[in-house]
Amino acid sequence: MKIQFLGTGAGVPSTLRNLSSIALKLLDERNEIWLFDCGEGTQQRILKTSLKPRKVTKVFITHLHGDHIYGLPGFLSSRAFQGGDTPLTIYGPKGIKEFVLTALRVSQSHLRYPIFFHEIYEDGVIFEDNQFKVTCGKLAHGIPSYGYRIHEAEYPGELLVDELRANNVPAGPLYGKLKNGETVTLADGRTIDGKDYIGEAISGRIVTIIGDTKRTDKSFELALNADVLVHESTFAKENQKFARDYYHSTCIDAALVAKEAGAKQLYLTHISSRYLAKDQKQMQEDARQVFSHTCMVNDYDEFDILLDK
Amino acid sequence: MKIQFLGTGAGVPSTLRNLSSIALKLLDERNEIWLFDCGEGTQQRILKTSLKPRKVTKVFITHLHGDHIYGLPGFLSSRAFQGGDTPLTIYGPKGIKEFVLTALRVSQSHLRYPIFFHEIYEDGVIFEDNQFKVTCGKLAHGIPSYGYRIHEAEYPGELLVDELRANNVPAGPLYGKLKNGETVTLADGRTIDGKDYIGEAISGRIVTIIGDTKRTDKSFELALNADVLVHESTFAKENQKFARDYYHSTCIDAALVAKEAGAKQLYLTHISSRYLAKDQKQMQEDARQVFSHTCMVNDYDEFDILLDK
Ligand SMILES: [Zn+2]
Ligand SMILES: [Zn+2]
Repeated sequence: MKIQFLGTGAGVPSTLRNLSSIALKLLDERNEIWLFDCGEGTQQRILKTSLKPRKVTKVFITHLHGDHIYGLPGFLSSRAFQGGDTPLTIYGPKGIKEFVLTALRVSQSHLRYPIFFHEIYEDGVIFEDNQFKVTCGKLAHGIPSYGYRIHEAEYPGELLVDELRANNVPAGPLYGKLKNGETVTLADGRTIDGKDYIGEAISGRIVTIIGDTKRTDKSFELALNADVLVHESTFAKENQKFARDYYHSTCIDAALVAKEAGAKQLYLTHISSRYLAKDQKQMQEDARQVFSHTCMVNDYDEFDILLDK
Repeated sequence: MKIQFLGTGAGVPSTLRNLSSIALKLLDERNEIWLFDCGEGTQQRILKTSLKPRKVTKVFITHLHGDHIYGLPGFLSSRAFQGGDTPLTIYGPKGIKEFVLTALRVSQSHLRYPIFFHEIYEDGVIFEDNQFKVTCGKLAHGIPSYGYRIHEAEYPGELLVDELRANNVPAGPLYGKLKNGETVTLADGRTIDGKDYIGEAISGRIVTIIGDTKRTDKSFELALNADVLVHESTFAKENQKFARDYYHSTCIDAALVAKEAGAKQLYLTHISSRYLAKDQKQMQEDARQVFSHTCMVNDYDEFDILLDK
């Protein structure tokens, strides 16, 4: 599991930071990529990475502001052009379907794959299978804006082979049964319960993506114990009033969420173009005073998200 | 008058050629910029030029395929963000208004300037003032696709000062009247008609922009005697069949239009990403065999369009 930032700017693009988009790469886990937001120019950013558009199976939209959605019609079209023929699901606030379908209809774009729309009206689980659960929660951004919590299912514990050997349980096909938690009877008459020889389950990873919002308790809830918290950080510490007035966060707001939610790593994104390089460095420093595991990200940055064994 | 190419690719962006957009810079003439098409990423291209979005007063859309319009909502939003507060008019086939208004409404973008829509249903003059006339003509691209002919009004001839002097007409304020074509009576009793002392009018410039199309007579009509002809050139000489099947042009189609229409300069754009650099060079060579004043353009290329005095 990796996360790659495709666009880390806010509102308008700059020459360094493009508009919002994040790729959650689940290639080892399910050979899929999930995209979070798709600002204008996302497909051009993708061109300069190793990401294959056809592997994108889900797009989660945090909210409908233009800098988060205007790249979607172009991305969908190019996905078809580049051989994508498998279904894709778009999650997002009401209106995303009308936007996408109008763009595709007016431009007479006939994609060769189905698009499913899952419009969000309230907090809750929006996707779940035996591997991942995605929960959304409504933030505070003036218009409906959702944060997403992606929770990987736990991995079963390992079979404690050393302990079995110590108890003279002979290796062989029955180890497979024990690993599944079954009970087996040995040749010497002993009955062994597999559950007694399975180690602790390994927790799945939690990734939380908090799009545009001002301070709200919902962010803490979504970020609880997250391995990775991505949080918007439009404004610097000293612009707290701007942040509140415009329904955005400062780097300090983001760091407080990470700290109080017990997150392991914080990535700051959605940085206003008003800040020069040195101001941005200061923003990262200020956030680190609150939560040390903080990194302000740049376009194309990619990070591993490791299992905590 | 200058022309700058912001995106010169076809269908999908490549790392070198972005999607269609052309800026006609009328800064000396009227302190305005007119944009032709606005593919996704046009605003990002503009960021790397000296173009000021607020100076764009007109956007002409050739046709509604996504690679020609998906950058429009983002461009319009950023124009507002960057201080644009003067009206803007969008010309294009029916549907452009629905696309733009839906994108702006869904994203709750409230621009601080009015947008006027001029949807095109048939050939004819779509704009005219005392300086410029813009005519459109329907091409052959499967969906409604228009070429645009921008015709500058002629400049009045210069006052023939040398001849006036030779005839002993004394210099002074009356030269201004003569220049306006008025008749004046001199102190010596002679009557002088200004019209007799005004040189030939200077023709205004003609710029023709032929968007996506296969061969059609309309292109010749629009390009007649153009100072600059911009013509799509999606395919190479040897892919004539592709060009016809997909309603596009080859470099040869484009060169034939330039030649038969008596254009002075041809710029080839809308180049398919299938062609490598050497193929593209060959395309330009092949076109030059037909029409020598041909140049295949790249993103950011800018050219002067001079008055032919
Ligand atoms: Zn927003
Ligand atoms: Zn087209």
